[in-house]
Amino acid sequence: MTILYHLPFSSNCRLVRIALAEKKLEAKYIVEPIWERREAFLKINPEGQVPVLLTKENNYIAGATVIIEWLEEAIPFNNLIGKEITFRAEVRRIMAWFNNKFNHEVESTIVFEKIMKVFIGKGTPDANILRVGRKNLLVHLQYIDWLSKNRDWLAGDNYSAADISAAANLSILDYLGEIKWRDYSFAKEWYARVKSRPSFRSVLLDKIPGLLPPKYYSDLDF
Amino acid sequence: MTILYHLPFSSNCRLVRIALAEKKLEAKYIVEPIWERREAFLKINPEGQVPVLLTKENNYIAGATVIIEWLEEAIPFNNLIGKEITFRAEVRRIMAWFNNKFNHEVESTIVFEKIMKVFIGKGTPDANILRVGRKNLLVHLQYIDWLSKNRDWLAGDNYSAADISAAANLSILDYLGEIKWRDYSFAKEWYARVKSRPSFRSVLLDKIPGLLPPKYYSDLDF
Repeated sequence: MTILYHLPFSSNCRLVRIALAEKKLEAKYIVEPIWERREAFLKINPEGQVPVLLTKENNYIAGATVIIEWLEEAIPFNNLIGKEITFRAEVRRIMAWFNNKFNHEVESTIVFEKIMKVFIGKGTPDANILRVGRKNLLVHLQYIDWLSKNRDWLAGDNYSAADISAAANLSILDYLGEIKWRDYSFAKEWYARVKSRPSFRSVLLDKIPGLLPPKYYSDLDF
Repeated sequence: MTILYHLPFSSNCRLVRIALAEKKLEAKYIVEPIWERREAFLKINPEGQVPVLLTKENNYIAGATVIIEWLEEAIPFNNLIGKEITFRAEVRRIMAWFNNKFNHEVESTIVFEKIMKVFIGKGTPDANILRVGRKNLLVHLQYIDWLSKNRDWLAGDNYSAADISAAANLSILDYLGEIKWRDYSFAKEWYARVKSRPSFRSVLLDKIPGLLPPKYYSDLDF
């Protein structure tokens, strides 16, 4: 049985969940409270981070990008990185952009302050950090808007892991009501297409008790 | 003509330089002063970071991991990610560890403080930041020592981009005299093997005027 150790509101985990759904690979999902630094989990992944995939062959694959590459090699069905070498490089560039840069500039500020900090009992969100995160978010939204205006999908002609990665990140900000979609019409139209895919369904169902999303969050036509 | 935009003391750039040498792909090396945020360079890579590779076909490939994957697909000769799917995942996991985690915890502290800060005129190294970086470095050295003790090469039986990535990172710390090799005999023996490869030669020749490396830095038998 394939197992994914994850956190529901981690964008890197959502990227893998959506990719697993695209590949039609059934998996058991186990929430891993990484802040507890469980010894058994640190043995699996010394970095102590999610996502980690336990394959049917009993191999642990750690890290979103590593899992995506592994998945693409293990299950050629429903190609997510693309076939042509330059397109593949562009998919990986955009994936790295969101998995690292967006994560560092937006997720570790806004999402950490509004969800994780409260959840692990480290107090209330810091207004200054939120302000920095929101300023960073604007730049990323403009970039997605620009890409969506100039291309069918973020990396080019085809839907790919670049779209999944960007949408996985945005979905969490959207849950928090942080995205003013009316300012980004191209990004909005692109996001509606990604969000309508069956692979996206499960992440739209995640809820945080006491912190509900805006009404349009799971609307496919928002 | 292939061109690499780089910085001599960036570990992600060294990773690519060594990989290019392993693949025997000749390239012109252009130093890109990323802190100037040149408009022409930002058009090439909106992230504003090095390394960026300009291929013979005039495509820009940005980011160390993306370039390594591209290189492996473009030039199958002298395989650097490996062939077997689980080994490939392990190579990518270790590469990501050094390109992201080590970079964040050690390079952005020690290397930034001792080289970049002085170079771009932002003052002298901050002793507290250096202390944090050095504490982090110990953990990474112990991890490399443990991997070297248990495996022929960092990712398993074969030399790979995992070894290049780790060694590229260590080479800069070694230049700065930050590594007490006698405490890490397995890591030392492994590093000596990586460093002795012809592909490593060029990075050992880089010098910072006014900041010379310890005598043993470019010794292959240190």
